[in-house]
Amino acid sequence: MASDRPVVGIDLGGTNMQVGVVRADARKVGPEKAILGVSRKKTRASDGLDAVLGRIEEAVREACGQAGVAVSDLGGIGIGAPGALDPYKGIVFEAVNLRWNDLPLAEILTGRLGVPVFLDNDVNAALYGEWGLGAAVGASDVLGVWVGTGIGGGLILGGKLFYGHHMTAGEVGHMLIFPKSPPGTRSLEHNCSRTAVVDRIVRLIRSNRASMLGEITGEKYEKIKSRALATAYEAGDELTREVVNDAATLLGDQIGSIVTLLSLEKVVIGGGLTEAIGEPFVKRVREATREIAFPDVCKKVEVVASQLLDNAGLLGAAMIATDRMS
Amino acid sequence: MASDRPVVGIDLGGTNMQVGVVRADARKVGPEKAILGVSRKKTRASDGLDAVLGRIEEAVREACGQAGVAVSDLGGIGIGAPGALDPYKGIVFEAVNLRWNDLPLAEILTGRLGVPVFLDNDVNAALYGEWGLGAAVGASDVLGVWVGTGIGGGLILGGKLFYGHHMTAGEVGHMLIFPKSPPGTRSLEHNCSRTAVVDRIVRLIRSNRASMLGEITGEKYEKIKSRALATAYEAGDELTREVVNDAATLLGDQIGSIVTLLSLEKVVIGGGLTEAIGEPFVKRVREATREIAFPDVCKKVEVVASQLLDNAGLLGAAMIATDRMS
Repeated sequence: MASDRPVVGIDLGGTNMQVGVVRADARKVGPEKAILGVSRKKTRASDGLDAVLGRIEEAVREACGQAGVAVSDLGGIGIGAPGALDPYKGIVFEAVNLRWNDLPLAEILTGRLGVPVFLDNDVNAALYGEWGLGAAVGASDVLGVWVGTGIGGGLILGGKLFYGHHMTAGEVGHMLIFPKSPPGTRSLEHNCSRTAVVDRIVRLIRSNRASMLGEITGEKYEKIKSRALATAYEAGDELTREVVNDAATLLGDQIGSIVTLLSLEKVVIGGGLTEAIGEPFVKRVREATREIAFPDVCKKVEVVASQLLDNAGLLGAAMIATDRMS
Repeated sequence: MASDRPVVGIDLGGTNMQVGVVRADARKVGPEKAILGVSRKKTRASDGLDAVLGRIEEAVREACGQAGVAVSDLGGIGIGAPGALDPYKGIVFEAVNLRWNDLPLAEILTGRLGVPVFLDNDVNAALYGEWGLGAAVGASDVLGVWVGTGIGGGLILGGKLFYGHHMTAGEVGHMLIFPKSPPGTRSLEHNCSRTAVVDRIVRLIRSNRASMLGEITGEKYEKIKSRALATAYEAGDELTREVVNDAATLLGDQIGSIVTLLSLEKVVIGGGLTEAIGEPFVKRVREATREIAFPDVCKKVEVVASQLLDNAGLLGAAMIATDRMS
């Protein structure tokens, strides 16, 4: 039996952390009512491990204060962290952004907070959130793809998060899409992440293609993020549309191949670039996915945008804690 | 509890069918001792459904006669059939080679033979055989890839055959490897099947590349099959080696991407081309797979040749029947 005590979900990123106190019956009350208190902080990994752990602890206490819940009354804590990790042992093997290696994070936080802590990958947590409360409720076989600085992914297979033998399943960004191209240019992430899209646009602007992105960014091209891309896309900037649409089609081609491999029911697309461009992006991905999916029955696959946006990670981490305790 | 009665396994192909009476304790006694009697026949789908069903029935009776087992004493029958099908409903949706559509094959054969019949895909059956008795015993997360006229695949995930939402999982041959190439040239099967390898060699011979395949086949290039390729490959024919090795590397690249996605423990490669060329082919696939697999822990993936060869399908079909009854 699951406890009815609230749980804390932590979405730990390389730049920001988001912490929320979440009701144990989150699935029943829905994503809006499920969050009782939140705290957001900078991660600042460069300050060192102790400083980051201290800020996590502080954020948990702040969110609990806002929710009117004592930390000792929590049923548990779930944390989604970036990088390679073992969710069952609670160890982060390697988180490059955080400069962490072989860190028994679950055990350390359990010691500091006096509450059982459950670890998972950040993308798995976001997908679990969408599966529990958002865009993929009730689906049994789901791929989640998050398109931002890089491309992360996660899998629900047979109604459960799928980890694989080495616990690293879901690394869609590192699949090759141009196997004969040189290393560094041939993966999905090298071609379809926001970073790849911006690099290509800047290269084309520097070779004299016209674009309103110069105006939008004051020619500080290194600062182009998803928002600037969305502004140019919506305003009809030809170069931006061409490069973004091409990336969406390539992404959909690869997702179509994955649907073919795994006979998936649903695909959830999220991340900064997807959220900024919105339905025009998702629609292109969906069309390419369905064109490629084999056999015909797989063309029924649903390709939808994430619904929980910034809260997917903390809600999913909280639900992982709830479900692993039950 | 599994019964200790023998079961029949049927490997039904577009050209040949192979039927074997298999001991219920096949896993214990091993593949050599497991088969008590066999019968092999042409499928001859052009004769029509009734004729094919009659030949299946006849082959089952012959194999049972050879084994000294009455059909009525069988614990069950497993059949691996090509095409899209629902293993749980026992219905073949579409088997192009056999000209079958929406055929309740399990029910029909149960009626004809008076023994419960269990259906699965032919490639799943072969993988299940390797997993139960051959190259992948004890592994929890396995991809099987069969390279012949086409490229078929199957997946064991979490220690079970994985079917996916639409029951069609494993269609690796239809994954794209050159997404920007025209339809008909961009899938794994279009580039790495034996058919694709032969087509490319013949094209290059016709554009005046030297090859001993002319001599080996009496210039009947349309008749090149895996054996002729293996003869030329072993004799050091440069063109054959170049094209076969290129296909093996591309296949390994794609398998590496799948290992990245699913964090697999093991990959079994089989089929006519793999068996004919043998270890030089498997080695190239293995090297490419490990080069591409991400993160580093996934480079431990084992890539091995199938062991049961022609008997994989019938042994696997028999074990599927045994395991579904237990």
